Amino acid sequence: MDLLLFALDKNNDKPLYEQLYLNLKDAIIQKQIATGTKLPSKRQLAEFLNISQTTIELSYGQLLAEGYIISKPRIGYFVEEIDELPYIEKTISSPISIPSPVESFIFDFSPGKIDENGFPFKIWRKYAKDLLDESSKSLLQIGHRQGEQELRAQIARYLYESRRIHCNVEQIVIGSGTEHLLPMILRLFQDDSKLALENPGYSAIPRNDLQHRAIPISVDEDGLVVDELENSAADLVYITPSHQFPTGAVLSATRRTQLLKWAAQNPTRYIIEDDYDSEFRYIGKPIPALQGLDQNDKVIYMSTFTKSLMPSLRVAYFVLPLSLVPKYREIFNYYSATVPRFDQHILANFMKDGHFSKHLNRMRKLYRKKHDKLITVLSKNYPNIMVTGDVAGMHVLISVPSALPESELKARARQANINIYPLSKYVLAPIPYEHPTFLLGFGGIPLEKIEEAVHALMNSFTH
Amino acid sequence: MDLLLFALDKNNDKPLYEQLYLNLKDAIIQKQIATGTKLPSKRQLAEFLNISQTTIELSYGQLLAEGYIISKPRIGYFVEEIDELPYIEKTISSPISIPSPVESFIFDFSPGKIDENGFPFKIWRKYAKDLLDESSKSLLQIGHRQGEQELRAQIARYLYESRRIHCNVEQIVIGSGTEHLLPMILRLFQDDSKLALENPGYSAIPRNDLQHRAIPISVDEDGLVVDELENSAADLVYITPSHQFPTGAVLSATRRTQLLKWAAQNPTRYIIEDDYDSEFRYIGKPIPALQGLDQNDKVIYMSTFTKSLMPSLRVAYFVLPLSLVPKYREIFNYYSATVPRFDQHILANFMKDGHFSKHLNRMRKLYRKKHDKLITVLSKNYPNIMVTGDVAGMHVLISVPSALPESELKARARQANINIYPLSKYVLAPIPYEHPTFLLGFGGIPLEKIEEAVHALMNSFTH
Repeated sequence: MDLLLFALDKNNDKPLYEQLYLNLKDAIIQKQIATGTKLPSKRQLAEFLNISQTTIELSYGQLLAEGYIISKPRIGYFVEEIDELPYIEKTISSPISIPSPVESFIFDFSPGKIDENGFPFKIWRKYAKDLLDESSKSLLQIGHRQGEQELRAQIARYLYESRRIHCNVEQIVIGSGTEHLLPMILRLFQDDSKLALENPGYSAIPRNDLQHRAIPISVDEDGLVVDELENSAADLVYITPSHQFPTGAVLSATRRTQLLKWAAQNPTRYIIEDDYDSEFRYIGKPIPALQGLDQNDKVIYMSTFTKSLMPSLRVAYFVLPLSLVPKYREIFNYYSATVPRFDQHILANFMKDGHFSKHLNRMRKLYRKKHDKLITVLSKNYPNIMVTGDVAGMHVLISVPSALPESELKARARQANINIYPLSKYVLAPIPYEHPTFLLGFGGIPLEKIEEAVHALMNSFTH
Repeated sequence: MDLLLFALDKNNDKPLYEQLYLNLKDAIIQKQIATGTKLPSKRQLAEFLNISQTTIELSYGQLLAEGYIISKPRIGYFVEEIDELPYIEKTISSPISIPSPVESFIFDFSPGKIDENGFPFKIWRKYAKDLLDESSKSLLQIGHRQGEQELRAQIARYLYESRRIHCNVEQIVIGSGTEHLLPMILRLFQDDSKLALENPGYSAIPRNDLQHRAIPISVDEDGLVVDELENSAADLVYITPSHQFPTGAVLSATRRTQLLKWAAQNPTRYIIEDDYDSEFRYIGKPIPALQGLDQNDKVIYMSTFTKSLMPSLRVAYFVLPLSLVPKYREIFNYYSATVPRFDQHILANFMKDGHFSKHLNRMRKLYRKKHDKLITVLSKNYPNIMVTGDVAGMHVLISVPSALPESELKARARQANINIYPLSKYVLAPIPYEHPTFLLGFGGIPLEKIEEAVHALMNSFTH
């Protein structure tokens, strides 16, 4: 072959052998050296480039390992065929880039943010390090379609201990977030069955898919108005009883009983209980999950690690009534659980060794402090602002007695680099509100910044 | 408070402080010590239990950290209210456990398995370790709904270099596997638009959802029969041109042009190109992706890291034509990417530093060896077996000239603890086959076992 001139630079950060290796690799990929070409011997190349044979050996070794060249004993090194595509000329139809809107705020009162400072990275990292190892190589393959048995066992234990939910691992299905799992649950039922949704309610149910099926049901200070549900044509109801999203109402004990009775009256009726925000409760006794109270196999329980651990892990799960397990298996026999197996095992080990409950206890104290601070600052300084939905969870509702409309208040807050979430965003059917109302999430705002954040927000309204 | 008797055991594996901590914690959770109770002072308890004050201090410190007790300076330690549920008696409606079928095989010819021995755990672990750190704590929060910018940038670069696909990061959407992404793509189109599917074809499209929309189109040795598509009412077509699943046919150049022309004829027509198995090609030159050939913004390209990295990571992606990006953003504005952010960044860094292409090159060589071995063993020893679909990918088709039906052959293989996959499993509409036909995946069978595995399989057919 013609010798190629490589610019090797002894003062470069990269060692010589790597520079040589990269140069040769590029030349092979770009077909500057043809397939089948015999490379110069190590000695020849060392002399030509005036570098040591060891360097050449390292470079050739790397190319061999990666399959760019092959070695024929006693003959030499030859360039292998590389499966790279020939270059194809293409007229790009449109060079338009569509940048996605990126916004950053000084204070983001998002109800979906958690406190970043409480996460036990050291412990989590240890579990990750232990698992990402040859000894776990079987975890590279596809796992159980309902999620790893080990994680489901830990979830079952946790649900029993914290929520008195009785279930076995076969009832649990793990998936990437509530938005992902809800459509799966809905597929267990008839396409034309009507689904009752809280109004206002969680907006992550794909509205488009549901427009012909959804029946909005009112929410008051005791949660979902079950009387309304009883008078509807719905067979299914999706409900957030622990901390209704977004109003923060807690479903009263009377309503719970009433709801379970409603479900028991007809074999086609089921309750989808999203136990959202149940981990963090600040006032009064925890209220048991509907699933734990139910005697008729009528509740599909769902929850997530979004608030209790981190939103970005995307781990949620549901617990099927035993009666629905066979149907689930039939429909989803083609399915693979969406959460990476290594993450599932890291989480399972983290839970097994008690770190999850420790973490929850620590975070509970922290969020309680943030919650109390937020309420105190508001009530002391802004007595006109009405606060509701504050018994649990990571956000409260504030209703602002202002002559300005909600949209104008939100725009003013944004002007001051503050993000707030209007209640109207979560409304399925019109609801008359006396005053503009917003969700104030406190999870993502550091405890020591809460006072400043509240004042900044209130100032923005009047400027 | 009444002093509780704790059985502390100096010979126990657990240190004394931990035993004491656990005992106290349980007592607090089980309300044996009431909320607000003042704990004995460290000195008192040390004397009573006859252990050192340091031990008590460690236990109390742990309880403090986890929020079970609070410390009031100069007064003492008090039990905090714990948000645990009161126990609720429940008659379990049914104690039936529904075990999921677990099967294990000596040889599993699954087309979905990869080689476990080639994964660079050490490198991957390093990236994981570096990322799982306080300095990345912002990654705990929810990320970009299309997936992390960093990973999309690496994918765009990889697609350009390996498949000559032109796209920018705004066109890329990352999600947990093809099964998860396909329904998202379908939501970009009218509910009643007809979708052409290859027959036989990939079975992970939820058939239930599609029964009124799907039009099966035949596949021959040149891939999808585009003539048939042209005569159908379909506006959308889902196609696996690089290595048709499951037949292994490669869409010919003529068909590619014909298909792109079909799409260009009508504004409502689009091609969903699943570039499945394109990484591994054994015979002939790589064929460019449809997306790279298309001049009319008509191709939605999709691919996955399932084969090229690992199935259990569940990372796949699609590339939208620029014209569909606004529609995608509108429909999925509520959406969060399902892949954990930390995993996305690990993968992005892995790709950025060149490890992905190195890994691919290594695996290409390995799979080529396995492929060649499989073909050689079959052709040398079993000349009656016809092998097709062997130019690329991680499985071939074998057609077995046997008087026995497919189901009986599969049952016999299973008897011998061998798993094979009948072609009929992937058929949407009846196809007349001369002989029973099976998919033989070789990814999960170690190179040195391939010969043994093939003989074992063939023996099982005649026993």
